[in-house]
Amino acid sequence: MTPEQQAEIDAQRAQTHTTRRATAPGMEAHLYTAYPVLDHGFVRVIDYMGDDAAICQAARVSYGRGTKAVSNDEGLIRYLMRHWHSTPFEMCEVKLHVKLPVFVARQWIRHRTANVNEYSARYSILDREFYIPEPSALAAQSQVNNQGRGAALEGQEAARVLDWLREDSDRAYDHYEAMIATQTASGNPQQGLARELARMNLPANIYTQWYWKVDLHNLFHFLRLRADSHAQMEIRVYADALCRIVADWVPLAYAAFEDYRLGGASLSAKGVECLRRMLAGEEVTQESSGMSKGEWREFMGVVE
Amino acid sequence: MTPEQQAEIDAQRAQTHTTRRATAPGMEAHLYTAYPVLDHGFVRVIDYMGDDAAICQAARVSYGRGTKAVSNDEGLIRYLMRHWHSTPFEMCEVKLHVKLPVFVARQWIRHRTANVNEYSARYSILDREFYIPEPSALAAQSQVNNQGRGAALEGQEAARVLDWLREDSDRAYDHYEAMIATQTASGNPQQGLARELARMNLPANIYTQWYWKVDLHNLFHFLRLRADSHAQMEIRVYADALCRIVADWVPLAYAAFEDYRLGGASLSAKGVECLRRMLAGEEVTQESSGMSKGEWREFMGVVE
Amino acid sequence: MTPEQQAEIDAQRAQTHTTRRATAPGMEAHLYTAYPVLDHGFVRVIDYMGDDAAICQAARVSYGRGTKAVSNDEGLIRYLMRHWHSTPFEMCEVKLHVKLPVFVARQWIRHRTANVNEYSARYSILDREFYIPEPSALAAQSQVNNQGRGAALEGQEAARVLDWLREDSDRAYDHYEAMIATQTASGNPQQGLARELARMNLPANIYTQWYWKVDLHNLFHFLRLRADSHAQMEIRVYADALCRIVADWVPLAYAAFEDYRLGGASLSAKGVECLRRMLAGEEVTQESSGMSKGEWREFMGVVE
Amino acid sequence: MTPEQQAEIDAQRAQTHTTRRATAPGMEAHLYTAYPVLDHGFVRVIDYMGDDAAICQAARVSYGRGTKAVSNDEGLIRYLMRHWHSTPFEMCEVKLHVKLPVFVARQWIRHRTANVNEYSARYSILDREFYIPEPSALAAQSQVNNQGRGAALEGQEAARVLDWLREDSDRAYDHYEAMIATQTASGNPQQGLARELARMNLPANIYTQWYWKVDLHNLFHFLRLRADSHAQMEIRVYADALCRIVADWVPLAYAAFEDYRLGGASLSAKGVECLRRMLAGEEVTQESSGMSKGEWREFMGVVE
Repeated sequence: MTPEQQAEIDAQRAQTHTTRRATAPGMEAHLYTAYPVLDHGFVRVIDYMGDDAAICQAARVSYGRGTKAVSNDEGLIRYLMRHWHSTPFEMCEVKLHVKLPVFVARQWIRHRTANVNEYSARYSILDREFYIPEPSALAAQSQVNNQGRGAALEGQEAARVLDWLREDSDRAYDHYEAMIATQTASGNPQQGLARELARMNLPANIYTQWYWKVDLHNLFHFLRLRADSHAQMEIRVYADALCRIVADWVPLAYAAFEDYRLGGASLSAKGVECLRRMLAGEEVTQESSGMSKGEWREFMGVVE
Repeated sequence: MTPEQQAEIDAQRAQTHTTRRATAPGMEAHLYTAYPVLDHGFVRVIDYMGDDAAICQAARVSYGRGTKAVSNDEGLIRYLMRHWHSTPFEMCEVKLHVKLPVFVARQWIRHRTANVNEYSARYSILDREFYIPEPSALAAQSQVNNQGRGAALEGQEAARVLDWLREDSDRAYDHYEAMIATQTASGNPQQGLARELARMNLPANIYTQWYWKVDLHNLFHFLRLRADSHAQMEIRVYADALCRIVADWVPLAYAAFEDYRLGGASLSAKGVECLRRMLAGEEVTQESSGMSKGEWREFMGVVE
Repeated sequence: MTPEQQAEIDAQRAQTHTTRRATAPGMEAHLYTAYPVLDHGFVRVIDYMGDDAAICQAARVSYGRGTKAVSNDEGLIRYLMRHWHSTPFEMCEVKLHVKLPVFVARQWIRHRTANVNEYSARYSILDREFYIPEPSALAAQSQVNNQGRGAALEGQEAARVLDWLREDSDRAYDHYEAMIATQTASGNPQQGLARELARMNLPANIYTQWYWKVDLHNLFHFLRLRADSHAQMEIRVYADALCRIVADWVPLAYAAFEDYRLGGASLSAKGVECLRRMLAGEEVTQESSGMSKGEWREFMGVVE
Repeated sequence: MTPEQQAEIDAQRAQTHTTRRATAPGMEAHLYTAYPVLDHGFVRVIDYMGDDAAICQAARVSYGRGTKAVSNDEGLIRYLMRHWHSTPFEMCEVKLHVKLPVFVARQWIRHRTANVNEYSARYSILDREFYIPEPSALAAQSQVNNQGRGAALEGQEAARVLDWLREDSDRAYDHYEAMIATQTASGNPQQGLARELARMNLPANIYTQWYWKVDLHNLFHFLRLRADSHAQMEIRVYADALCRIVADWVPLAYAAFEDYRLGGASLSAKGVECLRRMLAGEEVTQESSGMSKGEWREFMGVVE
């Protein structure tokens, strides 16, 4: 981040206003601060609407903030989460500014129930910033999972990959700059390629940025999928950073989300039946379970 | 509204908090106040996110509030509205508490890109509140428009309609109460019909209420259709009340909306061609326009 | 249904066409037939897109129908369902014509990711058709569940409720007709109230109808919530009728839905932990589980 | 396209089935055929639902295909389009298979109300196919429009750009292949980088592909924005190809879309007022119009 950008953020953080709106102190502390993710990325909260009490107010269609004890609110929030009553959680909203590599952005945008304004490479010039993985993140293709990772690459292979990623990024950006320039390297005038065309030379590890706004229900859905161990690491670190922020924003709702979604498990009808047989003392095997090998492995991951 | 409800609202209005968030003074003044609509309805703002500057910040994917002159913001907002760039307007959000007759609610809910929590008649008991039109609103079926209204009913016909509406509402509610009661009128115990069944006896002029949350782009779309002269009057009065609130919340965006949407017009390719012929001095008639009678009437409504 | 309407349906069923599109024989047999639901309602399939193979084709982004064995398709579909990969299921679509009471329609419409065209009571005149429950469906308010039902009403109480529902419906419709009429009962001319106003006198058990179009993923979501034992019976019977149709349309996807959703169960992190303790031989009670009474009751419903 | 892929397509085209569903002959002729777009891309129709008559049936909530004359259907469709009644158009649906450069895909995906399954570069290996513009498409940055194009590049500058695009694409793909390979160029075994990481080295002109399903209303919205002269050429050619297909699928709806949307124009309240003054014989200038220069230029584009 440039000193000018940091100064803009600091100036905004320094201003306070008086409001009648519901205010979440835990979230106020996070506002505007850019939390680093990966080598050049960040997430920061631009605005938010609502708190734990607002979820309960909406569920009750209340006239005021109410005088209910916090323990009542906690019970209601857990009930709503357990029974998939999603609409009260939709009554909270958050707006983020995120800087992220393009290949992460392409996964992220698959979550459609959100609002987004992305930095335009038709209109503007992208910065020379590329994601280059840490050596520990430079993982081999998994042997067991077609869309997963194995151990980190070692020695010369790792070095070679890093060199290619760095060199190809740099060369692509050099050419990007040279193509849009209105004079050549030797100083002669040239027309300069349209930005909307020149950007096509840039690889998917270049950083982009956007404003992204989403309601709490859909954010939880995003976090459940992207903070999961099967998500690609480069998006999971963004989800993890968001989990920490949401836990401070709506602590009761986040605790219910952790219990019922992040830490919970889904069982199939076959799984429920096996479970009952096991609790009745029966020795159940994959063969006698009626499940496929993959299902059985996932089922054992829950019960063991 | 009961005194208890008014007291809850007053208590909430009396509280202020300090926030780092963007704050719209025009909207703060409206917060929580219930603006009456129809005979028992209201709209009131529960929360909001963003202001005119937030629209521009999102469009620019900015790091701070920026130092742009307000005149720059106005030009950008008008440009975005004119060119149907909807995503920056989606970056503002508002949450409302609305009390409205069921037949209005059924039109309203057709706007799907919004979040809603409605008072549950499965869980709770509805109040004895029914919409009974003002005599001036008791309109005859239009002779020219199958889904429109003509002049107000007169004399005995109007009186008869009002009597029926009042009597049928009252009787339906008497029976609703008697059905769910756990003792009969003569004081004997009875089982009491389930609320989810008893509610089916209530007519569509009974009031319901909900929390409704929507982004500014989709709210503008709602207002364009529902503040229109072709909308049913009973939903238009809600749209009109919202227009006044939005004008104070995001004055630049609302002014652009008024100019380009509410007060603007759409022309077909045929309409554009006729227009050019007329500007060139030609006398164009419906016959020579290539338009149907309905299209021609609407076209003349624009140019005259 | 009138003989004219039945004749229209029969005429449409009698026509066949040649197509290159994927065709589901199980669904062709259902096309257009109106399956009765409640006393005057129905569901019927107007059109559909896709079949089990189409789900797999989309997941594989294939060039043709492929030569994969059906057993491969089944495994893939089960994998997709188990891992919440919803997008391939969105590649199937169904369009229905449904006739249903208004209070059921108001629950149904809460499922927003669908397309709907409802019969317009602003434009047209509604029919004299009201839902009057079977005596066995005339249930008392549940004593344990604020939004549930208990035993059926008995004797005079049941008779009284049925009389009120019938009489109030009839009277409301008589007045509806009289208000929109252009002559009075005694034959004198009158203006006739606008339809958009007169409809407000009609109770929520009147029937409406609509075309409703939805993708398979969102239909499964609808069925999971509405074919559930906690759903109101009057919408559950529609969900049940749809389950039978979907089972014939996409048998592999429906079987996976039954196993993983309808018949499956969700456990919280606490539930998973208790389960493991129980499988290890520990005697776990509500007190030692860390769950609330409600959670424990639901947990025991899964494991027992 | 490989001969195997073409054979799969041909095999699917050769099969016909009998169906009771509404069938659009104009669309049947297009089914499955891959229409080339850009140098390696294509669009092809995988499935469709509905036709012009289906739009009218939904608007009328009909029991059958009806016996209305086609001229009635045309009038109704034009009325619906003119008055922004979008829901009947949502009752038609189309599923496409599209091959397109990644930078085009990133614009395309901004249309959120659609279903998509993209070829996964986490799971699979991408092909060596890159978009290299025709010389005539190699445009300079526009001098007047920050997100537009000027004249084509000439001479050495054009040659240099094409060389860079080709060389950088090839090198990036060489390294992509070498990184995921399980042996080095000299034949020694290596671990092989995870596909989900290796893809980040590939530039935005590489081709991807997806299944994309959308309803007709949202497709029209896509076409209005993307077949527009301000859209980037590389997405406009896809929109143009789709326009030709849709014109054969729903000829009445497409004609209305052309008249009211593609060929039509929007006027602001200020524009309407100026128009009336001009028709009344007044000489209106930008200064006396109350419009900004940009607005005036666009307004003159309509009336002249």
